Amino acid sequence: MEHRTETDFLGSRRIPAEALYGINALRARENFPDTTIFYEEWYRAMGLVKQACYLTASSYYKALEQKLGSAMPAIRRVPAPVLEAITEAAREVSAGQHVAHFIVPAVSGGAGTSINMNVNEIIANVALLKLGFNPGNYSEVDPTEHANIFQSTNDVVPTALKVAVMLLLNDLEKSVNRLRGGFEALEGRYRDNLRIGYTQMQEAVPSSYGKLFSNYSDALSRDWWRVSKCFERIKVVNLGGSAIGTSVAVPRFFVMEVTKQLQHLTGLPVTRGENLSDTTSNLDAFVEVHAIMKALAVNLEKIVNDIRLLASDIAGARLKLPQLQAGSSIMPGKVNPVIPEFVISAAHQVYANDALIAGLCAQGCLDLNAYLPLIGHALLGSLKLLVASCNTMLTNMISGLEVDTTASLDQLLRSPAIATALTPYIGYHKATEVALLMKPGHKSILEINSEMKLLPAEKLEEILKPSNLLKAGYTINDLT
Amino acid sequence: MEHRTETDFLGSRRIPAEALYGINALRARENFPDTTIFYEEWYRAMGLVKQACYLTASSYYKALEQKLGSAMPAIRRVPAPVLEAITEAAREVSAGQHVAHFIVPAVSGGAGTSINMNVNEIIANVALLKLGFNPGNYSEVDPTEHANIFQSTNDVVPTALKVAVMLLLNDLEKSVNRLRGGFEALEGRYRDNLRIGYTQMQEAVPSSYGKLFSNYSDALSRDWWRVSKCFERIKVVNLGGSAIGTSVAVPRFFVMEVTKQLQHLTGLPVTRGENLSDTTSNLDAFVEVHAIMKALAVNLEKIVNDIRLLASDIAGARLKLPQLQAGSSIMPGKVNPVIPEFVISAAHQVYANDALIAGLCAQGCLDLNAYLPLIGHALLGSLKLLVASCNTMLTNMISGLEVDTTASLDQLLRSPAIATALTPYIGYHKATEVALLMKPGHKSILEINSEMKLLPAEKLEEILKPSNLLKAGYTINDLT
Amino acid sequence: MEHRTETDFLGSRRIPAEALYGINALRARENFPDTTIFYEEWYRAMGLVKQACYLTASSYYKALEQKLGSAMPAIRRVPAPVLEAITEAAREVSAGQHVAHFIVPAVSGGAGTSINMNVNEIIANVALLKLGFNPGNYSEVDPTEHANIFQSTNDVVPTALKVAVMLLLNDLEKSVNRLRGGFEALEGRYRDNLRIGYTQMQEAVPSSYGKLFSNYSDALSRDWWRVSKCFERIKVVNLGGSAIGTSVAVPRFFVMEVTKQLQHLTGLPVTRGENLSDTTSNLDAFVEVHAIMKALAVNLEKIVNDIRLLASDIAGARLKLPQLQAGSSIMPGKVNPVIPEFVISAAHQVYANDALIAGLCAQGCLDLNAYLPLIGHALLGSLKLLVASCNTMLTNMISGLEVDTTASLDQLLRSPAIATALTPYIGYHKATEVALLMKPGHKSILEINSEMKLLPAEKLEEILKPSNLLKAGYTINDLT
Amino acid sequence: MEHRTETDFLGSRRIPAEALYGINALRARENFPDTTIFYEEWYRAMGLVKQACYLTASSYYKALEQKLGSAMPAIRRVPAPVLEAITEAAREVSAGQHVAHFIVPAVSGGAGTSINMNVNEIIANVALLKLGFNPGNYSEVDPTEHANIFQSTNDVVPTALKVAVMLLLNDLEKSVNRLRGGFEALEGRYRDNLRIGYTQMQEAVPSSYGKLFSNYSDALSRDWWRVSKCFERIKVVNLGGSAIGTSVAVPRFFVMEVTKQLQHLTGLPVTRGENLSDTTSNLDAFVEVHAIMKALAVNLEKIVNDIRLLASDIAGARLKLPQLQAGSSIMPGKVNPVIPEFVISAAHQVYANDALIAGLCAQGCLDLNAYLPLIGHALLGSLKLLVASCNTMLTNMISGLEVDTTASLDQLLRSPAIATALTPYIGYHKATEVALLMKPGHKSILEINSEMKLLPAEKLEEILKPSNLLKAGYTINDLT
Repeated sequence: MEHRTETDFLGSRRIPAEALYGINALRARENFPDTTIFYEEWYRAMGLVKQACYLTASSYYKALEQKLGSAMPAIRRVPAPVLEAITEAAREVSAGQHVAHFIVPAVSGGAGTSINMNVNEIIANVALLKLGFNPGNYSEVDPTEHANIFQSTNDVVPTALKVAVMLLLNDLEKSVNRLRGGFEALEGRYRDNLRIGYTQMQEAVPSSYGKLFSNYSDALSRDWWRVSKCFERIKVVNLGGSAIGTSVAVPRFFVMEVTKQLQHLTGLPVTRGENLSDTTSNLDAFVEVHAIMKALAVNLEKIVNDIRLLASDIAGARLKLPQLQAGSSIMPGKVNPVIPEFVISAAHQVYANDALIAGLCAQGCLDLNAYLPLIGHALLGSLKLLVASCNTMLTNMISGLEVDTTASLDQLLRSPAIATALTPYIGYHKATEVALLMKPGHKSILEINSEMKLLPAEKLEEILKPSNLLKAGYTINDLT
Repeated sequence: MEHRTETDFLGSRRIPAEALYGINALRARENFPDTTIFYEEWYRAMGLVKQACYLTASSYYKALEQKLGSAMPAIRRVPAPVLEAITEAAREVSAGQHVAHFIVPAVSGGAGTSINMNVNEIIANVALLKLGFNPGNYSEVDPTEHANIFQSTNDVVPTALKVAVMLLLNDLEKSVNRLRGGFEALEGRYRDNLRIGYTQMQEAVPSSYGKLFSNYSDALSRDWWRVSKCFERIKVVNLGGSAIGTSVAVPRFFVMEVTKQLQHLTGLPVTRGENLSDTTSNLDAFVEVHAIMKALAVNLEKIVNDIRLLASDIAGARLKLPQLQAGSSIMPGKVNPVIPEFVISAAHQVYANDALIAGLCAQGCLDLNAYLPLIGHALLGSLKLLVASCNTMLTNMISGLEVDTTASLDQLLRSPAIATALTPYIGYHKATEVALLMKPGHKSILEINSEMKLLPAEKLEEILKPSNLLKAGYTINDLT
Repeated sequence: MEHRTETDFLGSRRIPAEALYGINALRARENFPDTTIFYEEWYRAMGLVKQACYLTASSYYKALEQKLGSAMPAIRRVPAPVLEAITEAAREVSAGQHVAHFIVPAVSGGAGTSINMNVNEIIANVALLKLGFNPGNYSEVDPTEHANIFQSTNDVVPTALKVAVMLLLNDLEKSVNRLRGGFEALEGRYRDNLRIGYTQMQEAVPSSYGKLFSNYSDALSRDWWRVSKCFERIKVVNLGGSAIGTSVAVPRFFVMEVTKQLQHLTGLPVTRGENLSDTTSNLDAFVEVHAIMKALAVNLEKIVNDIRLLASDIAGARLKLPQLQAGSSIMPGKVNPVIPEFVISAAHQVYANDALIAGLCAQGCLDLNAYLPLIGHALLGSLKLLVASCNTMLTNMISGLEVDTTASLDQLLRSPAIATALTPYIGYHKATEVALLMKPGHKSILEINSEMKLLPAEKLEEILKPSNLLKAGYTINDLT
Repeated sequence: MEHRTETDFLGSRRIPAEALYGINALRARENFPDTTIFYEEWYRAMGLVKQACYLTASSYYKALEQKLGSAMPAIRRVPAPVLEAITEAAREVSAGQHVAHFIVPAVSGGAGTSINMNVNEIIANVALLKLGFNPGNYSEVDPTEHANIFQSTNDVVPTALKVAVMLLLNDLEKSVNRLRGGFEALEGRYRDNLRIGYTQMQEAVPSSYGKLFSNYSDALSRDWWRVSKCFERIKVVNLGGSAIGTSVAVPRFFVMEVTKQLQHLTGLPVTRGENLSDTTSNLDAFVEVHAIMKALAVNLEKIVNDIRLLASDIAGARLKLPQLQAGSSIMPGKVNPVIPEFVISAAHQVYANDALIAGLCAQGCLDLNAYLPLIGHALLGSLKLLVASCNTMLTNMISGLEVDTTASLDQLLRSPAIATALTPYIGYHKATEVALLMKPGHKSILEINSEMKLLPAEKLEEILKPSNLLKAGYTINDLT
């Protein structure tokens, strides 16, 4: 393989001639021997942010010329053809192209410098090819002087992360809502189907499948609302803030315009932080947003746990889950609750990410937090897992879920729990007597009633209607 | 010591004659051999909730009588004198009285049943004493039939928890805001005092103490806002929902009125959940609220970590913390950063509580979550620690904090970091040259400038003014 | 109330005249407004360590006199009567006396200085009373000069923690083993009682209750072994190391003798670290020991989770747990799995403590870790909860646990899972056919066999014997 | 692209004709839309375990034939050529071949069934190609009947995980020891170079760089020992236990021989569990082993944190770290502590994994834990990160680390901390006086001594020798 040589202030390194990465990425790879793959979502967002920077730089130069004309001072500028080429290269990065040349792993030191420099190198080298030069010919297009113009790692990398997060939040918002809709449909379908309510896994008082599914649908409504509110925080970016939010060595024009440009380019509600030093050094927005992810994960775990239990052999399989894959290599026909297991695994991964993110966000030191790479990776990872969880729950679990309504009703009628519901009509002591009679032979309340002649059959039927059993409290009429 | 005997369906137990607790609390104590003390805040809130229940029961009986008059059916009612006595007893509980008779530890099984029953026993026994009977004479005032009227553990215990949380949130909101104010004052005092900005603990570019303190003040503003938003969630209670939110065996009047009564009694924005089954079985509101606590803890850790570092011997003690206590039993005069250490400890306790709460909230099963006791304990614990942290930070750290402004400025002027700021005026290459000259002898930029005659002294002074150094980006005028 | 005034280099404070604490404890209380109660176990261990120090100091003075006689230089020494009085005071502390005067909360900054000083103050004041002086008369007995002789917070506080840990480890070792014995007894009792094995909550293949209980007993055997190995680490102390393990300002005699003295006094295998700086600055031993606690907690959660499920109404109540306390204030006769719930709560608290401890142990800085107070609190808390969990599991859950062996066997014989066991005898295809026939009417394998005449009844009976069904793999004889 | 059709009991799917995976893997991919890549280490270990199974099956058939000869019953056997072909295919898997056809993501439900089936499909299809058939021609070589012979997911997948863990533990053991050696070398080099000891970031008493590095080396010695002890636990496998450790439908010959075969094949100390049900259902060994990883991570974080601080600009850069990569895209020449940042990130990932693993291991239910895939992924991930961390610390941080010994000594001599060391010679009051004189002008103890004429210069020099300053306590000779 042919090679080129690249040099920085620490020395020289041989690099495959065709490689679009450069010496900075290579050193990162050696310094950080992690093998976890950096999320393409963040890489692509880097392309978007870089594009916004280049387009703003171009506007700035135009504004300068317009204002100063021939009085234009001899400042260093990125030449127009170079600016055009890197803009196009950044667009390609934003489309996910050249990602094979992004060689920095997910876990890295340096607060994101390696991420930024690998992207800068790719952009510079892609631009070089576009302009007819060889990769590595940085005197023509320079990864730092040109590709990083008016930027700092400390503003572009977190801004790109926020863009990637918002794009995934868009997906998540939709997925959560669709899942919520799935439960709403189940609620509608099974509104009047009774079941025993369980507290602490013991039979308690009557309830319905409608209630059960509405509990899930209401929990997911809150999640949906919470996810939708996440944008408020995460949209505030520090682009233009340079190294520590003081915008050192950046034109004010750029500071004022670049975020609008990014907003325009992405269609996302990105806004500039009012105090860019704060936005640069404090990462509580990530903590807050991920905490919302965790609340969703908690609800998902609760839901699939319930459903798995109700659908399990061990609890009598009152729910039927769709069969998805052979469950055992030795027990023929066994089908396992693989979607609940997947979702619970994902939820626990989200909890682990949550602790990781909070722990690292708290370790920021003075004007910067050095741990952005792993914080971002964990945050994006949670988002992706939650989108995946909601989607597979809807498609592979909820859509085909069936309730064995007959068995459920029968079980309720044979449970002493139903006796409690008769208290207002037959009194507490009679009800206790009934409960005790039901227990031994698993006799139904209907049988007991006809034996003991407690209430007319129609009255009992009336009482046991879901609309009556589950209304919010008894009224004076019930008593008289 | 004299004893009385109490009996339940499992058998009999001897209890000290004067004890206000009963057999349920005693069994809990034996079953749950934890020694962690249950928070009095929750105990007192139980008194408030019970009061609201008794007052509503009283209104209900009155409404019944008014409506039915002589047609009033022979339903079991709590006799008026008993109702009056337990209301007064509940008021005493809400004032923290009799807390020594609350013997259930913080960690318990049973979803809060033991908490509820111990309070019921105290209320019944206090009422008995008020009515001239001996404790344990439950045929007169019954812990379940009377003290628990229209209630279930599953609605009163979580409702009381939410009341306790809201009362502490009120404190926290004030504490966070006062602390924010403390940093705002520091920001005002040190607005124009320059310092070196540090990224990754290395010198970066110039900044100011004003920026530093504004970063803290802005972060705490977000925390303040977030804390204030917590009420939205936590205010939704399931009181009146009975065992599983279906309001079984509860009069509709009670369901409709009791929350208003509680709101009136506490002055808190408590509201009734729209779906009481959801409010009973899903605990995501606790996850969400505690996550906000965690975001605050993250900001506090970041802040005190920074301040400890800047004030440390090892980093040259640019900040001076107030001396609070002797720091060493063998090194005379040593004073340690005990407040930062306390706050970091508290923050880590909050992180631990956060994982605990999420983990247990996800373990709810069907119609209830059995782990409410520990969830509530951890949540209240975090709130108390955060109030304590904000208060001690303000009083014992921020109020007396001093900046060594002269040394800080001198350090900046001798740092190559200042050279970067000259780039727009002397160009990148000259700036690099300056930086290299400064390094060996720690020479000041002022000395170098007078030696090299780069800029007129007044121009340099102008450039180095904080208002100029820290403005948001350079303008065209700066270049010309 | 009468007061005395105490003074340190920061100023003066009024203190109740009878108080045994002093100005250092009072300042700590103000600086650290936490309300969590410091564990008495650690307080008492401080008394043991102090005693060992005073006894060693006494031996040192005697050795000096013996060696030097009249050539004895005029060094500062603790006068003999004072030494005697503080030794006796320390003994009282080790017995838990005066603990009400220990006013430092569990969460404190300062690496334990406040803990040490509060104990020093109690010892000095108790000694003063013994010698006929008033509390606060420190010119006679000084909390630092006398009570802290040859010590530093940085060696006595962690050493006392390790002593407290070892004493609790002794308890835990016994509790785990007794619990293991409880399961071993169940294993013996139910060795030959068959049940369906479940994987992923679905019926799998036949197993027995003997296997189930042996799984628990074997897991607890490992825990027992692990707990017993904890001493190896935790026994290594830095007593005599002074501030940072360099033994500055401590006589070599003391360094060499004090640990032996402590070993003698406590009967514990305490040993002196080979590198006292390492023992002072690195806290990995706490991480390791607590991790072992966590492994135990994991096993306990698994066990009680299983038992709760098998005993639950929802899973058909194959196990019967002893009834321990009324489970519901509104559902008469409901009894809940409160012990499993307690143990799961405790386990999650241990997990939370584990993260807390690791996180804080990693934050040690150079020659010391400032977070010892909370680390120690969490470690002791976990130990106490685990002892409590094992004890209540044994007494309140395992001892009275019953298996419904008849129903379990019947369930197995009606489950298609049993068909798998016939494969070696009737072939895979016949077995599948049998399984399909069993499903619809929940027919027993015995019925199917007599209908289909697959095997002679005795042969089937032979096959279905536990000794045959559960032996480790089939042999050639089985096939022929 | 050409396709083939595969069918299972749930229906049919089209699969690319050349694909080595099959319908089971494809369904898993759809059911589990995670994108995290499954570790190749586990994949390769599956190849090793499968090989051991096939070789043992072959021995079994031979033993059967030898024993029974013509009396051999007509049992289903894997034909010899198929057995040979799948053995070779498994060998290729163990070498990492065909990994691109492993399409199951890291997070999956089903307790590992999809992992096992994807490997079975690859092995069957590779074998088919070897035998001259097309992929998918499962009537010739069947993924279940042949490739899974005598196995269950529940024994092969965890066994393979343990093999992968042990192979990485071998690497880790070496890496930790090499790193320990690196610090030992530094300890030797800087044994006699004094520095100020810091507690709570404040100056304390004198110490040396030798002590500092020995603290690290001793901590790593413990880690090394702990890592080496991990094998004891993780080596116990359940191979041959089939679905739930009862060895159902597995020949006893296989149960007894297969682990020895695996031991022979891997050179690892794999042993068969004494109670295979226990080994199958309880995962505490993973909790324990990962906890050891966490203890190592804690030590690594402590070490790099210290070194980063000592090497930082903010603390005066007493240590010099090797320069590894350009640290800033806008601040020329800035070099950041990227290795400490990487290691701290990795450590926090390990902490997160630790909580994840414990949480999921505790969720095992009855005879199996369904979460093995994510548990294994997290465990392997931690191992890989720790190997990476140790290696990059040694190569990129320790090997080139330099101490500025002159500046360190000068700093110590100018610190009041040194005065404490003179106490035994000049008394406590004189020492305090000296300390107070040193502070204002940062005067050296040497200057003060010559001004105040406290001790003869040679005596002072003698006292300040490291061998004297850091010996373990003073002796009677020092006093006289």
